[in-house]
Amino acid sequence: MASFTHTSVPRLKYGIREIVDVAVKLKEIDPAYNFVWENIGDPVAKGWPVPQFLKNIVKEKIDCPGDAVFGYSHSRGVINTRKWVVDYAKRFSPSSKLDCENVVFTSGLGSSIAILYQMMKPGKRIIQPAPAYPTHSSFESFSAGAPPLAYNLDPKDNWQPDLAHLESQLKNQPEICGLLVINPNNPTGAVYETETLEKIVKIAEKYGLFIISDEVYFRMTYNGRQHAQITEINQGRVPLVILRGLSKDIPWPGARCGWMEFHYGLKHSDFADFAAAVKQRILLEVCSTTLPQTILPELYDHPEFENWNKQYNQGLETAANQIAGILASSPSLEVLGANGAFYLMPLFKEGVLNNRQTLPIKNPEAKKYIESLANSPALPLDKRFTYYLLANTGIVAVPASDFYSPFPGFRVTTLDRDQTRRENTYARLIEAVAQYVQS
Amino acid sequence: MASFTHTSVPRLKYGIREIVDVAVKLKEIDPAYNFVWENIGDPVAKGWPVPQFLKNIVKEKIDCPGDAVFGYSHSRGVINTRKWVVDYAKRFSPSSKLDCENVVFTSGLGSSIAILYQMMKPGKRIIQPAPAYPTHSSFESFSAGAPPLAYNLDPKDNWQPDLAHLESQLKNQPEICGLLVINPNNPTGAVYETETLEKIVKIAEKYGLFIISDEVYFRMTYNGRQHAQITEINQGRVPLVILRGLSKDIPWPGARCGWMEFHYGLKHSDFADFAAAVKQRILLEVCSTTLPQTILPELYDHPEFENWNKQYNQGLETAANQIAGILASSPSLEVLGANGAFYLMPLFKEGVLNNRQTLPIKNPEAKKYIESLANSPALPLDKRFTYYLLANTGIVAVPASDFYSPFPGFRVTTLDRDQTRRENTYARLIEAVAQYVQS
Repeated sequence: MASFTHTSVPRLKYGIREIVDVAVKLKEIDPAYNFVWENIGDPVAKGWPVPQFLKNIVKEKIDCPGDAVFGYSHSRGVINTRKWVVDYAKRFSPSSKLDCENVVFTSGLGSSIAILYQMMKPGKRIIQPAPAYPTHSSFESFSAGAPPLAYNLDPKDNWQPDLAHLESQLKNQPEICGLLVINPNNPTGAVYETETLEKIVKIAEKYGLFIISDEVYFRMTYNGRQHAQITEINQGRVPLVILRGLSKDIPWPGARCGWMEFHYGLKHSDFADFAAAVKQRILLEVCSTTLPQTILPELYDHPEFENWNKQYNQGLETAANQIAGILASSPSLEVLGANGAFYLMPLFKEGVLNNRQTLPIKNPEAKKYIESLANSPALPLDKRFTYYLLANTGIVAVPASDFYSPFPGFRVTTLDRDQTRRENTYARLIEAVAQYVQS
Repeated sequence: MASFTHTSVPRLKYGIREIVDVAVKLKEIDPAYNFVWENIGDPVAKGWPVPQFLKNIVKEKIDCPGDAVFGYSHSRGVINTRKWVVDYAKRFSPSSKLDCENVVFTSGLGSSIAILYQMMKPGKRIIQPAPAYPTHSSFESFSAGAPPLAYNLDPKDNWQPDLAHLESQLKNQPEICGLLVINPNNPTGAVYETETLEKIVKIAEKYGLFIISDEVYFRMTYNGRQHAQITEINQGRVPLVILRGLSKDIPWPGARCGWMEFHYGLKHSDFADFAAAVKQRILLEVCSTTLPQTILPELYDHPEFENWNKQYNQGLETAANQIAGILASSPSLEVLGANGAFYLMPLFKEGVLNNRQTLPIKNPEAKKYIESLANSPALPLDKRFTYYLLANTGIVAVPASDFYSPFPGFRVTTLDRDQTRRENTYARLIEAVAQYVQS
């Protein structure tokens, strides 16, 4: 049997979950391991309680006569919910001209992303931010059959997009037809300024690009930041796909419920063809998750939602600022505080890392296993660090290089709710950094 | 902006849902339309009550401390459930050597199918049955960038696979590396004999193929038929992917919970690479639906499940035999009774259809709309019939040509629970056939 696997599979990288297999292997070797999962943005796993109003609504709907929440829904999503999404978009962007036929539900943000890039013509490119979110950059790269193309986010400018770098990339690469913005940003925790988005829209207009705006964290901003609405800034100038989902602001990531909003006008006929292709692709999976879709309007319009969201963001703010403070006390790290989403990405100062540094690992077999990983050829230095960190402390962090970051570092979450545990985790982490650097 | 949509999008066809848009349009034109949805295999929409034990289990899990059913699960699926799947596979095929690392959960069967074909090397082919299930044949064709390759199912042999045709296709097309079996079959309702599966495995062995066995309906057989287990017949000779899901035997299609079982041995290293590619692809969507996965073992092992399943199959048997009886009374149709799944596919006798036949449509605008569809160039004759049937009676059936059937006909479901309504629907349908044929 000759090989029949797609040759671009190595382009499908997802370090956020790949490190789980390393942790599982360590636990097999030494059952005494207890891990601190700082790799995954799951509020539930980090102890954020699912609001009681959500549970009550789910239970009510399960008992409704007719059992509709158990059946298939419309392929593009429950019609009433799609109409609600149209109104919801207008709440944040009053000039939105979104039509419910251009709202498409999927089984989660990851599924939306997979479908979007699968419908792209091979060779046409969507430029990604760097650091990237690997579901975007990997699917784009798989579809293109080439490495990701990226514009830098600038850590010296509070992780705002480096627009000069973006333009230089666009000038050289006419195959780019779209531009990805993730705001609030994963993995950096940055929230983009209105001015920045205005400039991005202008660049998209100048180069004839459409914009994919991943806004799954748009209700999670703090430290006084507000989420600027690209739909409102754009005013119909360039075609937009907005990606949202029920998983982060309401802590129900296991629901797998995401949606896409295609914002465009009559003049954007190529984009209309693309939106039609996505809708056609959606038919083939029959429909996405019916129950979460059905109750989505009730959840977001529940009288307790805004208060829940406020408390949630306050908790994230406290945690993010505390964690940033601890990390910044390390002389080896550069830390930019997060203002949104669940993440922080400290960077190693220049020249701090080398490929001879280690941390002690008690269990000899675990040590041997980590050394075998650490010695793999062309291993990024920050990834090498996260392996030793994992085996020494049990802290699971994701190296910045797994996000195609041009700068070495690592991503952690701001989700741990317990102040003392947070303090312990991050104190241990900077101790480990110090010990590793000096080893 | 130059076009950036994948040129193979026209290969993504799904008549089962495309006809919904036609019905919606008719309803807009004439709100008096009431449709009988015979296009979609949704037991819930057809009045099959969701068992109370399922609802109770869901409600219990929602109240469990820790809220785990709301969070992300392991990317390949909840580990305890994957272990249960391993045991479940052994219940039906005692020789199964399935390992829980080779069980992969997805957000529904459609998602499993999409991912499988996306991971195939372009140009390598999976031969499909004809009539086909369009999610399989469309995704395969999209991935290959070419029309589907198919082996016929033989209506003269109770819709069993035409193995001589299969072999003749394999001899001519060395790019075929796998073979799809859907058993019990959608759209024909056929259940394959043990002997047939034995021959298929031998052919796969001879030509070095792997087998995709879509068994989502494996608990739904009647008229004395049993589902023969291809895993047990195969005994590890050729690599197998078994596709199953929680949606048909337990009526919860809106859950979007499917799984893949990769059965293979050490000698099947190319297939091991393929399974690894699918698992890697799965990481990028983080995980699939957590709640249904978590409770799946409790549902299938519930003391009431077997009784529920028995009653359900008895109901399907009664309906299938009644519907087949009514359809067979039409002199224009050839009808093979179903023995499994939810479907029946009556065929038109040779020479019965032409492109001048019509049915009366009262509303002039609806008539004009249907005529515009009926006059589209190269429209298959059975599709033409289903448009008129829809506009005249409100019955939504899917033309056999939408399943790449070599024979004209249409697919209906055996799901309607009300005997009188079934009688009325199908009496109306054969009257419409008579009127159309004689028009």
